[in-house]
Amino acid sequence: MSVTAPAGFAAAGVVAGLKSTGKPDVAVVVNRGPLKVGAAVFTSNRAKANPILWSQQAIQDATVEAVVLNSGGANCFTGAFGFQTTHQTAEKAAELLDVSPGDVLVCSTGLIGTGDEVFRAKVLAGTEAAIAALSGDGGDDAARAIMTTDTVPKTSVFEGDGWSIGAMAKGAGMLAPGLATMLVVLTTDAVLAAADADAHLRAATRVSFDRLDSDGCMSTNDQVTLLASGASGVTPDAAAFRAALIEVCTSLAVQLQADAEGASHDITIRVVGAASEDDAVEVGRSVARNNLFKAAIFGNDPNWGRVLAAIGTTQAAFDPYLVDVSFNGVRLCSAGAPDRPREEVDLTPRATDVLIDLKAGEAAATIFTNDLTHDYVHENSAYSS
Amino acid sequence: MSVTAPAGFAAAGVVAGLKSTGKPDVAVVVNRGPLKVGAAVFTSNRAKANPILWSQQAIQDATVEAVVLNSGGANCFTGAFGFQTTHQTAEKAAELLDVSPGDVLVCSTGLIGTGDEVFRAKVLAGTEAAIAALSGDGGDDAARAIMTTDTVPKTSVFEGDGWSIGAMAKGAGMLAPGLATMLVVLTTDAVLAAADADAHLRAATRVSFDRLDSDGCMSTNDQVTLLASGASGVTPDAAAFRAALIEVCTSLAVQLQADAEGASHDITIRVVGAASEDDAVEVGRSVARNNLFKAAIFGNDPNWGRVLAAIGTTQAAFDPYLVDVSFNGVRLCSAGAPDRPREEVDLTPRATDVLIDLKAGEAAATIFTNDLTHDYVHENSAYSS
Repeated sequence: MSVTAPAGFAAAGVVAGLKSTGKPDVAVVVNRGPLKVGAAVFTSNRAKANPILWSQQAIQDATVEAVVLNSGGANCFTGAFGFQTTHQTAEKAAELLDVSPGDVLVCSTGLIGTGDEVFRAKVLAGTEAAIAALSGDGGDDAARAIMTTDTVPKTSVFEGDGWSIGAMAKGAGMLAPGLATMLVVLTTDAVLAAADADAHLRAATRVSFDRLDSDGCMSTNDQVTLLASGASGVTPDAAAFRAALIEVCTSLAVQLQADAEGASHDITIRVVGAASEDDAVEVGRSVARNNLFKAAIFGNDPNWGRVLAAIGTTQAAFDPYLVDVSFNGVRLCSAGAPDRPREEVDLTPRATDVLIDLKAGEAAATIFTNDLTHDYVHENSAYSS
Repeated sequence: MSVTAPAGFAAAGVVAGLKSTGKPDVAVVVNRGPLKVGAAVFTSNRAKANPILWSQQAIQDATVEAVVLNSGGANCFTGAFGFQTTHQTAEKAAELLDVSPGDVLVCSTGLIGTGDEVFRAKVLAGTEAAIAALSGDGGDDAARAIMTTDTVPKTSVFEGDGWSIGAMAKGAGMLAPGLATMLVVLTTDAVLAAADADAHLRAATRVSFDRLDSDGCMSTNDQVTLLASGASGVTPDAAAFRAALIEVCTSLAVQLQADAEGASHDITIRVVGAASEDDAVEVGRSVARNNLFKAAIFGNDPNWGRVLAAIGTTQAAFDPYLVDVSFNGVRLCSAGAPDRPREEVDLTPRATDVLIDLKAGEAAATIFTNDLTHDYVHENSAYSS
């Protein structure tokens, strides 16, 4: 059910001809209210696509009636014409839904630098077709329409006490720190004030999508949007809602990791004993971005020396000669020196656990990443994106 | 002739049995004087190997009699035993050369976490054998003995006006910003004061090895050492000597790039129009480290969108919507929008030129990198280092 699981939402996904495969490529999610609360977080990349530039303005009043999403073209670095395409998309949806264009967000994903008149015409026609197809159970269609190199749609639903959260996500490559090439729409029928929606969303993305770093690359088009309809009439406990939102976002992040382009290992890097959470995140990311480490995991080589070489490049507080490193529960390095033999570690399972104890404090963080494989190189050298 | 091209130096390279291939693996370079001036720069990785920890202390008095280098083992994260191995290596060389152990530098390269008693015994025996084999034309033997996955030895010679510079380098992987897994010995028979040697070395590495970023990974063992014998009796013009040293270091850096593990393209990223040189370096590095860009080049895809997505993650001063990007002389992106068609770019040659004009000032910098290939993944997943 994805984004239409909570009450008050309709969605659709249609074929607009943007994808050469003929698969669905335009989705619309509409908030039927009574509340029209919206919150969004965007890529921290300074090279922002036109839909990001538009949506950053449109979210200012925290009111969102609808989100239009397209795959098959990022509409990024397409000049003034590209911005007009985004603008016209919002106007088209607003006209058909009888709302203000400023309350329609737009998301795009696909190849950078493409967005000509043909693209514009298809997006506008697709928007019209999707709005005509809106349905209270259209969430799964919408989730399929935002896929690019994803092999499966990603959705999540949380059932609260009289309220619920629904969600869809896309993104199989360029998963990275700011966010990922990731389009996410979260919906809830809970009653939420705008400021609370924003705070909950930022808190949840900080410990979920922001901890996913598949290949160190940050997209120009990342956007995570939360829509609250209030249709349940229930105002949830703030802590319970935030915990639920974190659970949904983490579920989506793990689904994104599991479907990362070409990956053969899903690597969970747990950093403990850090002086601060920021230190733990910095250390985890430095390992997640180290190509030699990532290639070693692909080769089922528990190369702890590459872990230490990676964390040595950080500014985090720790002494490299006190650090312990374990792979899948076997401590290979103790206090910066060899411990158990490498042969005791079996890295053939896809799920890979790397535990780094910095011995510098009580803070911890977990980073999710993938290995560097032949298929990653193949998919990203043969496919323009 | 490598390091023995200048007057006043002897060198040797011998088989000590550290490499399973039976190839030479211990080298010694000796400064016969009359000056014994030394300067060195080291990896900025906080995880430093034992020979780095030793050499950092030994260089403090700017006097260096000899350098002992081994391949076949990094002696990194090998505990107190490993540090003793380095210490004993310096003592062994000092005893045989009748000099102070504190004037002997040690360099090691190979697998991290290895350095047991067998390793120690072989290094000590190899040091003895190399010193017995010292010769005024042993530079090429020494250059071969420091190779790891290098396919060719790297050497360079500059003939000045009555003085000369000789050099050898190793390092085919883990080439990165601080330096690279790179061991370099530079020799000169020029008369140099210690402070000048240090200043010239830092100036030269800053614009050569520090601009080489093959795969973003920084080694635990990088060391670049300059030895001055004064045997020519000539005190060169400071500017002329510095220019020569930059030329030698750049020649070695380009040789390292050309022999990078698994690479199929040597990519020169020229950043111009930057507000500062630091900005230009930051922008160039962000592109050099972007796996999606690197994989695209492997696929002969001039993907300028990935260039802009990479530079958008930097803090450099520029407007992404003013930037021009050219591949091999063809401007594909002008002011952040598509310009010439991609089809006009031929990326089949190994030499690849990427020109980024930030339109933000007058500063410039060039970064040397490589593409991300199937062979890179293969070599670094199958080979423990």
